[in-house]
Amino acid sequence: MHIDTLSTPCVLVDIDRVKANIGRAQAYANTHGFALRPHIKTHKMPAFARLQVEAGARGITCQKLGEAEVMADAGLDDILISYNLVGIDKLTRLAALARRVRLTVAADSPYTVAGYNDIARAADVSFDVLIECDTGGGRCGVQTPEDALALAATLGGGARFAGLMTYPAAGKTAEMAAWIDRALAVFSAASVPVGTVSAGGTPDLWRAHTTPGLTEYRPGTYVYMDCSQVAAGAATMADCALTVLATVVSKPRPDRAIIDAGTKSLTSDLLGMEGFGHVPACPQAIVSGLSEEHGILRAEHGLPEIGARLRIVPNHACVVSNMFDHVYLVSGDQVLDCIPVAARGRVS
Amino acid sequence: MHIDTLSTPCVLVDIDRVKANIGRAQAYANTHGFALRPHIKTHKMPAFARLQVEAGARGITCQKLGEAEVMADAGLDDILISYNLVGIDKLTRLAALARRVRLTVAADSPYTVAGYNDIARAADVSFDVLIECDTGGGRCGVQTPEDALALAATLGGGARFAGLMTYPAAGKTAEMAAWIDRALAVFSAASVPVGTVSAGGTPDLWRAHTTPGLTEYRPGTYVYMDCSQVAAGAATMADCALTVLATVVSKPRPDRAIIDAGTKSLTSDLLGMEGFGHVPACPQAIVSGLSEEHGILRAEHGLPEIGARLRIVPNHACVVSNMFDHVYLVSGDQVLDCIPVAARGRVS
Repeated sequence: MHIDTLSTPCVLVDIDRVKANIGRAQAYANTHGFALRPHIKTHKMPAFARLQVEAGARGITCQKLGEAEVMADAGLDDILISYNLVGIDKLTRLAALARRVRLTVAADSPYTVAGYNDIARAADVSFDVLIECDTGGGRCGVQTPEDALALAATLGGGARFAGLMTYPAAGKTAEMAAWIDRALAVFSAASVPVGTVSAGGTPDLWRAHTTPGLTEYRPGTYVYMDCSQVAAGAATMADCALTVLATVVSKPRPDRAIIDAGTKSLTSDLLGMEGFGHVPACPQAIVSGLSEEHGILRAEHGLPEIGARLRIVPNHACVVSNMFDHVYLVSGDQVLDCIPVAARGRVS
Repeated sequence: MHIDTLSTPCVLVDIDRVKANIGRAQAYANTHGFALRPHIKTHKMPAFARLQVEAGARGITCQKLGEAEVMADAGLDDILISYNLVGIDKLTRLAALARRVRLTVAADSPYTVAGYNDIARAADVSFDVLIECDTGGGRCGVQTPEDALALAATLGGGARFAGLMTYPAAGKTAEMAAWIDRALAVFSAASVPVGTVSAGGTPDLWRAHTTPGLTEYRPGTYVYMDCSQVAAGAATMADCALTVLATVVSKPRPDRAIIDAGTKSLTSDLLGMEGFGHVPACPQAIVSGLSEEHGILRAEHGLPEIGARLRIVPNHACVVSNMFDHVYLVSGDQVLDCIPVAARGRVS
């Protein structure tokens, strides 16, 4: 079946590029002696998680419990939820999940640790805990290595301290490495072994080996790549596996064409890009604006005519795949399969 | 059931505010003698479309065929798809839908009109067509009233010319009204009756009566309202019916708290706002940044502690409800029901 038979807009995923992206990252990790624990937030599909594990990944990373439950249901059995799980509803689900899979979670506060300690005792389950460290990203995480050590010391019972985790700011690998280095010295001085040192982020994936002590990396976007990763130097357009197939539905003026993909397909993520996606078949066009179901292509000349179908590389693949209930696996222009984005919308 | 029993993040819809918003807009339309044809892109739920029709709406508006099919399945029987439907797949579905409901579609090009004429003849169906006019919005639409007249003249057979449609630029009601006025003169001079003159957009809803000749208005966001509508002066915070319920999961520093709602819940739509939503219970906090599953709250002091649950009014309600498979209907803090967002993700 040719992609021209599909109703637009829809998401195409080039399976050849996916496999190449998975293989390239795994080979890099193997070469440099750290484990890969891919983040499934990007594809949200058990089939791709299995591809990653079969290629050699240690296990998978999820951001939310709901994603992890979908993956566990599909047989994935070594899962890191790189998130503070807070509230009795989440802790109850954490306990249920810990009975089914080898589970690791994150903590950056006494509040979160108290919840983990309590549920491990109350439900008689055990799981690993990584202390999340703010190594410059400015999001979650303890602020100093000393805070990390103090927090690790409060874990007990079934909630086992297993190491450190960070999501560094893009492009700040050196700051992150220095932070981790200080933390390892602090833990060493206290004779507390640090089993895992886990970092993530596709923009700096190919610099992961420059962080001393790193044992694991959690890239997500690398499976699909996108305009923002090309801009970051982590990929080329030829690596980008996910595209939105759209149709030109209007051309009110020679310098303006309207496609049937808007923010409900491409999202409004700009991530520093000039437009809302790249059109390889019409590289002079800028996706200059989006409303919910319309995209505006602008170019001085050469815009496609009404009825033309275009593949668009989005700025941010992770949020685009989360908009769609299904994606089409393709090889070139041939549709191989249609598979559900099983963990789509599992934000809780 | 209290909202504190819900797993976060999730969407709460205050049914009392929804009913008040629907009633207020319908009363305004009734007073000024035009029909309301609410756009269901905002809620995507048949139950709310029925509320709107029961309150007096002429019918509903959908942006995509997939939305219209969901609404037709639920018994809604007078549907405008305010979109150019292009391609044989879409035209085939258009014909099937035209057999089930009173259907109106939009066209702004000879290409689209040719498709409508062809499918009406080939499938022996009839439906109404509005000529979409670019009255300043800079998206779709014919560029001049003369082009509108010429295009209308090419409709034939089951594809019946029924009037004019525009989606004006927000805040440019006067330009839109002048365009429409010229167009009505051009059609009158040619003795072509214009049955419907349809405009839309919640920001200018309460100025709709200032457009001479307007017969119908298609507001969408008014059912929920949001920060962008408050900024536009179309609503107050007390009218905002949709909120995202989130939990504080981390507080790395006194001036930074992290909530469990990111772009996969609130979306990255800024629409000119300062932050990514408003927190009524903590109005000094700015939702200063989002990643996919984290939101960053900043304030010099008074930020909530870990475990606190917050309702967030999003910048743009229409894209938020499209992120979730279900929403919770609430009255105050009581949960009344959980209903599927039936047309979520129906972008094609």
